[in-house]
Amino acid sequence: MTIHDITLTIHRSLVVWPMSPTVALSHLSHQAKGEDATVTYMSLNVHTGTHVDAPRHFLAGQSTVETLDLDVLVGPALVVDARSIERLTADALASLNIPPGTERLLVLTRNSELWNDNTHPFAEDYVGVDASGAQWLIDNGVRLIGVDYLSVAPYDELEPPHTLLLGADVVIVEGLDLRGIKPGEYQFVCLPLKIADSDGSPARAILIET
Amino acid sequence: MTIHDITLTIHRSLVVWPMSPTVALSHLSHQAKGEDATVTYMSLNVHTGTHVDAPRHFLAGQSTVETLDLDVLVGPALVVDARSIERLTADALASLNIPPGTERLLVLTRNSELWNDNTHPFAEDYVGVDASGAQWLIDNGVRLIGVDYLSVAPYDELEPPHTLLLGADVVIVEGLDLRGIKPGEYQFVCLPLKIADSDGSPARAILIET
Repeated sequence: MTIHDITLTIHRSLVVWPMSPTVALSHLSHQAKGEDATVTYMSLNVHTGTHVDAPRHFLAGQSTVETLDLDVLVGPALVVDARSIERLTADALASLNIPPGTERLLVLTRNSELWNDNTHPFAEDYVGVDASGAQWLIDNGVRLIGVDYLSVAPYDELEPPHTLLLGADVVIVEGLDLRGIKPGEYQFVCLPLKIADSDGSPARAILIET
Repeated sequence: MTIHDITLTIHRSLVVWPMSPTVALSHLSHQAKGEDATVTYMSLNVHTGTHVDAPRHFLAGQSTVETLDLDVLVGPALVVDARSIERLTADALASLNIPPGTERLLVLTRNSELWNDNTHPFAEDYVGVDASGAQWLIDNGVRLIGVDYLSVAPYDELEPPHTLLLGADVVIVEGLDLRGIKPGEYQFVCLPLKIADSDGSPARAILIET
């Protein structure tokens, strides 16, 4: 069994969404100061790094991250190679020969190369799923979509893809680092924190090759 | 496949270690205020709720949480029933008939009943693993120990069990909610966040029954 960690490392200089606070890390106690133990205190936007969106993120009053179905967050997933695609439209997704019945789809795009330097200035021209692509995913029974930049939706069309996907209870995993991952089938495990009433959560995501 | 979630929910009133700040949750933006999306900001001690300790927590200069071996955090685990035990000494652990070769051990104690109200005042009299128990775990090849209160070690003997276990690269998972879990074998997945240079991290932990 080989485990591939496809999670971004959380640190102070990690690129975040425009206008978002960066990650803050400090110490509540530190052995270097003669204290018994070293204890870190962390503050962050829950949509930092590798993270999961809950319906509440774009749909007022809808469900929150601690209620997301673990049966969707854990299970077989397909990694598809979309490195030649600039926008994940319905036509672009249809061109990828995704087998019927694929419930968890992780899309490797040119975005992953941005993680060669995860302190880069926010890249507005990342590859995302537009509204037609979101509808294609829903129509084809995809229950979880994973992308390799900080939003599933293109920067010039943020709201419609999120609203469509979240409204159809498709789980959105953003900020995956798919560098070096060979396209194909894996066991996928994505575990967000269990944060009460939250619109999202940072998560650890892995691919298991059996 | 049945997934049991053995993670505490993170919220403002969740009991924390004495003197630790409680969890802070606020909103960076909110649809109720007419903004496009709802975005939560979270601040917490990384040793809050269900969490993992890294060697750095008690051993200055030693390894940090983002380097913990995923091959230890994922795999078969045994849940043992220790609800009649008041202190997890070497003798107490030996009495539990733990099969040789058990690499991941989750100990269900009377502590789990404390999670019936996770806003309870911190309970100093929780059941923990003392130094003799820690040495027993190391001598018997246990690579991950999971406990159902906020520290692996008893409140009157915090440092030696931590130092022994972390010094032997035993992964410590604390704050599991094992209420209602039937003792026996499961597939265990515990995924802490990938926080750079941190002495610990909150985590999501699940048991998979196959």
